[in-house]
Amino acid sequence: MGVVVSLGEARKNGQTAEGSLKPLLQLVSKDMEAINRLILDKAISDVDMIPELAHHLIDSGGKRLRPMMTIAASKLVGYQDNDHIRVASAVEFLHTATLLHDDVVDESNQRRGKQAARMIWGNQATVLVGDFLLGQAFLMLVEVGSLEVLRILSNAAAVIAEGEVMQLAAAKNTSTTEDEYLAIINSKTAALFAAAAESGAAIAERPAEERTALKSYGKNLGIAFQLVDDALDYAGDSEQLGKATGDDFREGKITLPLILAFRRGDENERAFWTRTIKEGKIEEGDFEKAAELMRSHDAIEATFERAASFGKVAHDAMEIFPQSEEKQALQEVITFCLQRRH
Amino acid sequence: MGVVVSLGEARKNGQTAEGSLKPLLQLVSKDMEAINRLILDKAISDVDMIPELAHHLIDSGGKRLRPMMTIAASKLVGYQDNDHIRVASAVEFLHTATLLHDDVVDESNQRRGKQAARMIWGNQATVLVGDFLLGQAFLMLVEVGSLEVLRILSNAAAVIAEGEVMQLAAAKNTSTTEDEYLAIINSKTAALFAAAAESGAAIAERPAEERTALKSYGKNLGIAFQLVDDALDYAGDSEQLGKATGDDFREGKITLPLILAFRRGDENERAFWTRTIKEGKIEEGDFEKAAELMRSHDAIEATFERAASFGKVAHDAMEIFPQSEEKQALQEVITFCLQRRH
Repeated sequence: MGVVVSLGEARKNGQTAEGSLKPLLQLVSKDMEAINRLILDKAISDVDMIPELAHHLIDSGGKRLRPMMTIAASKLVGYQDNDHIRVASAVEFLHTATLLHDDVVDESNQRRGKQAARMIWGNQATVLVGDFLLGQAFLMLVEVGSLEVLRILSNAAAVIAEGEVMQLAAAKNTSTTEDEYLAIINSKTAALFAAAAESGAAIAERPAEERTALKSYGKNLGIAFQLVDDALDYAGDSEQLGKATGDDFREGKITLPLILAFRRGDENERAFWTRTIKEGKIEEGDFEKAAELMRSHDAIEATFERAASFGKVAHDAMEIFPQSEEKQALQEVITFCLQRRH
Repeated sequence: MGVVVSLGEARKNGQTAEGSLKPLLQLVSKDMEAINRLILDKAISDVDMIPELAHHLIDSGGKRLRPMMTIAASKLVGYQDNDHIRVASAVEFLHTATLLHDDVVDESNQRRGKQAARMIWGNQATVLVGDFLLGQAFLMLVEVGSLEVLRILSNAAAVIAEGEVMQLAAAKNTSTTEDEYLAIINSKTAALFAAAAESGAAIAERPAEERTALKSYGKNLGIAFQLVDDALDYAGDSEQLGKATGDDFREGKITLPLILAFRRGDENERAFWTRTIKEGKIEEGDFEKAAELMRSHDAIEATFERAASFGKVAHDAMEIFPQSEEKQALQEVITFCLQRRH
């Protein structure tokens, strides 16, 4: 346990992704109740639309992985006080704000299987409620009073936005390199995982080596998380447990499976990707063909492998800490992120 | 000088709005150069689109009234250090971020006589660069290290967003009351003026009475500023110096001149406002008719009068401070805000 295993091995052992999340869930369950209360409390406003829209997303059953990172990290380093609740809530607000803005930017219709907020309340309110939640996140951090945590999270806010703009600039560009793509997800996804984990140590005023270890853990876990996300969007049919959505394909989003399939493909195949992704001309059966091309080039398997490799870096980053329940829980989350099928 | 005078009086005296801004401009000119340098520096990013889009707005010749408030307030209370530069720059970034998001929310085509950023770079990048600037603003404040200033400005960020949502909820509702409208502009406009001025005293760690005096000054000045804005959007033809744009009318935006004309009007007139504002059915000549109805009910003059009344509150809020160059400059700005014609 606690060791990163390949997909195949995990399946052989009959280990489920959910099983790897359990230790973390148990560790943080009490604190997560306090966080859920605080989040609902801070989404209150005299302006009715704000709590309505905020609750739509807050109640929609996200896993709350990021605040759980903060809580577990603070426990790992022996933090005894109560400010981790507010810091973790601020992390979730920051995440929620970026989701709201993302939905507007990506023109998404759905989020977590429900209608996206923007489809109910419109793009305008969605942008503004995102801004409101950002402001509330920083207010909570000010209440906590740690300038170091404020630095970590305001930096994350700027970096996430930078990553999103990078992604926008790379949109539909099928010749994006793997390195360029990694830079994008490092900013848009991994930065918040890194900040969430690092904050847990910063609040406890732990030495730099513990903070950087948790930061590195969070960053690499975040990259792995995003890569698995990318793979699952195409991998459904070939994976018994999952379901491909094809959203990325239909939106012409550049992700690693696509980058690999494009590079590994021949002239004809590149023409297919150019038509569907770059020019956005998608016909009946194109998604099935895309998934088939990816399989023929092992692009999905390679993406899972790359993710597993980042998972290993995350695992090793934690090794400076002595064995503990918290360390084990955080390392098992890596397995969860690699094996999850939704 | 330094006394709030009515529009008529000011005109008789041949006093120009620009003359009332001069003392403030002189007082802050050196610091504003430093702020301009810092702002350009902090808009730098490896992602090309970010500095391009940010500069479009930053260089577009806004008056920078808000950061000037911060600088003048800090000088007023005898602040000697250098952090006011970063705080004032953060205030301008916050303002710029809200302008970017506003343009997207209002679907504006123009801003300060130039194409709105969203017309060049699209709504998506505009939302995200706003987020980037917000993150950079908080990072600058973290560098300064005053939790009090961080509290003031993160609160302002949340309140501004709240005000914008309130405005959205009141959109096209011609029976919005004057009180409801004041609550909206108190949040969406006055909160940042208040925070900008209060920050100047907070950075100097001045006692509460000086901070609240500057906050009250900023708040009332901000309301006056917004009301004059509202009046100018309709008042052009009747005012030799200005030009009405009619933007608010065409967008169906509820502002005080409209609220007053609707309430003071008869059944026929209300039917006109319902058709044009609520239903958005605007025909040739409707704006001229709207402006004419407002004149017939003195709605523009009343809006200027209300603004002048808030200006007086702002003026008195400053009276606890002993006479000084700074105090006089800040009080004269009130006259500028009331008499400006653009």
